[in-house]
Amino acid sequence: MTRLPCEVEVLHRIRPREEERACLDGVARQLVAAIDREGPARGMVVGSVARSTWLSGDRDLDIFLLFDPSLTREELEAQGLALARRVAARYASSYHEKYAEHPYINASIDGLDVDLVPCFAVESAARIKSAVDRTPFHNMYIATRIPDLVDDVLLLKQFAKGAGVYGSDQMTEGFSGYLCELLVLHYGGFTPLLQAAVAWRPGTCIDLAGHACKAFDEPLRVVDPVDPARNVAAALSLTRMCEFVEWCRGYRERPSVAFFFPPVQEPFTREEFASRLEERGTRLHALSFATPPLIPDIVVPQLRRSLEALCGLLSRGGFVVHQAEALMGEEHSLLLFELLVDTVPPVVRHTGPPVWDPENAGKFTEKYRKNRLSGPFIVDGRYHVELLRRFTDAGVLLRSPEVLSVGLGKHVKREMERGWEVCEGVDCYRDEWAGFLSRFIEPASPLARMGRQGVGDTAGE
Amino acid sequence: MTRLPCEVEVLHRIRPREEERACLDGVARQLVAAIDREGPARGMVVGSVARSTWLSGDRDLDIFLLFDPSLTREELEAQGLALARRVAARYASSYHEKYAEHPYINASIDGLDVDLVPCFAVESAARIKSAVDRTPFHNMYIATRIPDLVDDVLLLKQFAKGAGVYGSDQMTEGFSGYLCELLVLHYGGFTPLLQAAVAWRPGTCIDLAGHACKAFDEPLRVVDPVDPARNVAAALSLTRMCEFVEWCRGYRERPSVAFFFPPVQEPFTREEFASRLEERGTRLHALSFATPPLIPDIVVPQLRRSLEALCGLLSRGGFVVHQAEALMGEEHSLLLFELLVDTVPPVVRHTGPPVWDPENAGKFTEKYRKNRLSGPFIVDGRYHVELLRRFTDAGVLLRSPEVLSVGLGKHVKREMERGWEVCEGVDCYRDEWAGFLSRFIEPASPLARMGRQGVGDTAGE
Repeated sequence: MTRLPCEVEVLHRIRPREEERACLDGVARQLVAAIDREGPARGMVVGSVARSTWLSGDRDLDIFLLFDPSLTREELEAQGLALARRVAARYASSYHEKYAEHPYINASIDGLDVDLVPCFAVESAARIKSAVDRTPFHNMYIATRIPDLVDDVLLLKQFAKGAGVYGSDQMTEGFSGYLCELLVLHYGGFTPLLQAAVAWRPGTCIDLAGHACKAFDEPLRVVDPVDPARNVAAALSLTRMCEFVEWCRGYRERPSVAFFFPPVQEPFTREEFASRLEERGTRLHALSFATPPLIPDIVVPQLRRSLEALCGLLSRGGFVVHQAEALMGEEHSLLLFELLVDTVPPVVRHTGPPVWDPENAGKFTEKYRKNRLSGPFIVDGRYHVELLRRFTDAGVLLRSPEVLSVGLGKHVKREMERGWEVCEGVDCYRDEWAGFLSRFIEPASPLARMGRQGVGDTAGE
Repeated sequence: MTRLPCEVEVLHRIRPREEERACLDGVARQLVAAIDREGPARGMVVGSVARSTWLSGDRDLDIFLLFDPSLTREELEAQGLALARRVAARYASSYHEKYAEHPYINASIDGLDVDLVPCFAVESAARIKSAVDRTPFHNMYIATRIPDLVDDVLLLKQFAKGAGVYGSDQMTEGFSGYLCELLVLHYGGFTPLLQAAVAWRPGTCIDLAGHACKAFDEPLRVVDPVDPARNVAAALSLTRMCEFVEWCRGYRERPSVAFFFPPVQEPFTREEFASRLEERGTRLHALSFATPPLIPDIVVPQLRRSLEALCGLLSRGGFVVHQAEALMGEEHSLLLFELLVDTVPPVVRHTGPPVWDPENAGKFTEKYRKNRLSGPFIVDGRYHVELLRRFTDAGVLLRSPEVLSVGLGKHVKREMERGWEVCEGVDCYRDEWAGFLSRFIEPASPLARMGRQGVGDTAGE
């Protein structure tokens, strides 16, 4: 495999060093042995450590506790958590319970971030009882096929990180580690993958095991070789997919280390932010509240739903939304609205029933006999009246209890019922949100952002 | 036929008096005799005078000149106009040529407004060579059937006038005289018509001759008994139809003379207009220019088309149109826009090609490499950039030559190329437009307008 000079340089930086490998392997072996000794489960190292596809500096270790599949789900949870706790109690400097589909233990051991995850040791991937049961099969599938392509997986993971599209969590909506491994396997390496990816389009299907693509809806369809009903790229959004495609095009035109390690983006200062905002001339409104104490994969979709619901509220109120984004911060979450119009005249048209529905027409004209500005009048066969709006200012609307009446996510609503803050214009700026606000106020694809710094425009190294 | 007291009162006012009838008949007879004498055409009185269905005070007389159908169109026009001119020259105090489908002569004779219209004397309505050839057949159809229902037609015409829905011209989009006659014939009188009309809905079909309703598109379908391919109510808009339905409902609830002779609407003074505008909080923009020197049926549709095209221009520019109306004035025509938003921030999003179309994507990102505010960035798989708007003020846009680039009607465009004026807010007020502006700024159906003056709310006489 011919490597470009920049790729050789990158590999030197991202290949785990011998002492890292020894440390991770040592901890992993110790924990597996402890689990096997304790019984009744069997320990198994999974994830990138098991497949040697982790990037130097990563400190994550996934250990699965495989239990007899004849247990009930409740028994698995009780026995699994108890066993994981016993192991963690012996080796970890600290640990706590987390929850995905099942509860599991997240522990800090010798400076590593270790997940101890109970699952069922099912016979085949077709018999899984919960999503985590699939992981050992992924592990086997990749571990037996990947050895010659480990460097390619490392390059792809770092390349995706450089583009900001690595991670299948709800905030990133990008490429998981397993997806990176499958892509490298399918195309036979990093370079042929990039060559193919520049021509990806929505609906592209990759089917390693020849299961035949079933009707997935997602923009990229990668049939899981261990479970044909599952799209490994289900979490990948169309935007992230396209940003990756563009990143590949940019790299193939002018390859450079910067695609793996892009220059750090300095966020705008308050003054720079104010000047950008003035240039745009838009009206910024931010709604902030305490972040619900739950994992991002639960909170982020609720923030997105709340954002969409509030955009609807604003639009129905006559305000014009230019763009809106949500941020799940450590302490405070943010719903940010950039409006083209944040004050509207008092008059609003209200559409009533058709004239040929005399009963409802009568109710309508009776209802608005008083308190109307004009009408009733008839347009396209329907009654209309003009009324005075309740809210002529978006800031007042966003501070009003109306906000709680739209379809907010459950936990978002719970936090907001305790109160929320609204700020406007440059007052939305806070240091903790500076990076998010900067990307918001000057949207650019990863390639455009790098190009603006002059990196994508110069020849590769 | 039982008449309500108010109907009896109205009939006293609208039935032509004996001297009116004598005058009209005298002039008509004289003109027909002159035409017959001159040859080669035969004269015929048509329209409401021929059927005795004209309203007292109407001074319109329609005389047709029936020519041999073996003439060519050109011969008809030449010979027809020559004959009409000779007749007019002898009897009229003044006359001039007008143009509908054919040219004809409009003359002022003994204080009457007389149309002298050449047409082909075809054998049957199925053989007409132009729309005017149908009129003599309408005349025959109505004249033989209407004698017992003349009062009902008079009441209906005056009732429709009261609602502002009488007239099938392009400005009114209401009920023609012939349509009123057919409706009275079909339902057997004014009262049963009103009883039926309150239940009309779009698609209602009235088919006097049992021709079976063909697939007309218009909201009310009245099959012409002399030509089944023609909808007599084709010019009636859904709004005018519904306003008539509502007017019927209002009258049946509280019958009164006011439905035939509604109180005169005093237009708003400039001060009242300013105060209404302030209450609404909207931004008014008016564009005015010399009225094209053509008949309303040609100019009005062009004004409407221009209005729609300019609404599109405004919307594409980010401005929010609340309502818009066109007025064809004697000297100046007016395109009036009430905007919710007439200034917008400079930033505007521009959508480009999908990322998976590399050729166009490349052109797009190249094109906006400079002169962009932000981007390119990817939303839903497509490239976007943010640019600076050319127009952030609707008034500036409406004064710019952009206005001439949209789909204005031909004659409207020709006039506007000589110049147009834009005024804003209360400066749009002019005495000649006061009535139009008043109805615009406080829209109301005819019934609502009357109700506001307390007439519709009180018991009938």
